[in-house]
Amino acid sequence: MPKVSDDYLTERQDQVLDAAVRCFAEGGFHATGMADVIRESGLSAGSVYRYYRSKDELIAAIITRLLGQLHGRLIGMSAGARTPAEVIEGALGAALETFSGEQLNYARLLPQVWTEALRNPAVALHVQASYRQILDHLYQLTERMQRQGTLDDDLDPRGVAHVMLSAVQGFMLQKLLLRQDLDPATYLAAASQMFLHGEGETPLT
Amino acid sequence: MPKVSDDYLTERQDQVLDAAVRCFAEGGFHATGMADVIRESGLSAGSVYRYYRSKDELIAAIITRLLGQLHGRLIGMSAGARTPAEVIEGALGAALETFSGEQLNYARLLPQVWTEALRNPAVALHVQASYRQILDHLYQLTERMQRQGTLDDDLDPRGVAHVMLSAVQGFMLQKLLLRQDLDPATYLAAASQMFLHGEGETPLT
Repeated sequence: MPKVSDDYLTERQDQVLDAAVRCFAEGGFHATGMADVIRESGLSAGSVYRYYRSKDELIAAIITRLLGQLHGRLIGMSAGARTPAEVIEGALGAALETFSGEQLNYARLLPQVWTEALRNPAVALHVQASYRQILDHLYQLTERMQRQGTLDDDLDPRGVAHVMLSAVQGFMLQKLLLRQDLDPATYLAAASQMFLHGEGETPLT
Repeated sequence: MPKVSDDYLTERQDQVLDAAVRCFAEGGFHATGMADVIRESGLSAGSVYRYYRSKDELIAAIITRLLGQLHGRLIGMSAGARTPAEVIEGALGAALETFSGEQLNYARLLPQVWTEALRNPAVALHVQASYRQILDHLYQLTERMQRQGTLDDDLDPRGVAHVMLSAVQGFMLQKLLLRQDLDPATYLAAASQMFLHGEGETPLT
């Protein structure tokens, strides 16, 4: 019964990861040890170490979960986008989903992940790889829009990808820091109106 | 001679703050104590405590320095802006200056400040107050553009301010995390072309 076995594995991994996220949110990466995660998970040390051999592996798994899911949702929500504004609408929709339910605990770890990346080279590589995947996707969307003629060829797709990513990162950061001060609908409407809608409005360069 | 006395005070405060920034960058807010900062500063405990009575006061001073200087530069660089694109150009210029010289050490603490704000209510209030000042400034610039007729009245100035802030926050974050992968000139050119240049190109709402 490989299906049941896979489900069981995923469930146990989630149980450990969710426990780690709660510990990291409470005490931070540095003050948290594997013993804290084991205690919080309610599993045996043997089970936990079977899935994650170190704190760095747990942090890597959290980054993959957080940025990987954002990437996956971005692919889904921006598939048919024809203009930068539509890509950003899709990307913000993907970001907003990260703030619901159990995912919120992961989203709240985002600034801590960035902080850790500036001090821990292994975490930095992992974070960079995740963002490069997202940037590559935005880059390809931009090139497609240019091929289809809905976006000016003069724009550097790499720059466009970075600015699009900013619209998402800034939204997530401000939502975390300013909470109810940031209304997602207001932000989405402004972003949608402010960004280029395509060749109809050639920028005044 | 009040002038000399003021200079001396500022110089000593800077000496303590710079030492604190080095300690925080190395060991993080939590692992760093006042004793570490005193040792790093080369001053006596009495001198240090005269300026900053606690670690929280040091963190607050760093936030004021970091976001206050960004705000000050933003005011200078966006004074004559007539369109969202010009405001963002000015804001990115202000952000880029934060990455030069001694200021870079402060900029590198930004993710740690965000992280701390999610766990320490006193830091959260300080960070929120600083960002509200910046957002208010961007809000007023937006209202002015709408009064002057260079920006569509339909746009919610609050939403516009948040999206403009994102362009800056995302730039700073990506510059910190991705380093040479992010070319400031490419980003600035893309942002400048992607954002509305005013009433000439009414957005397709």
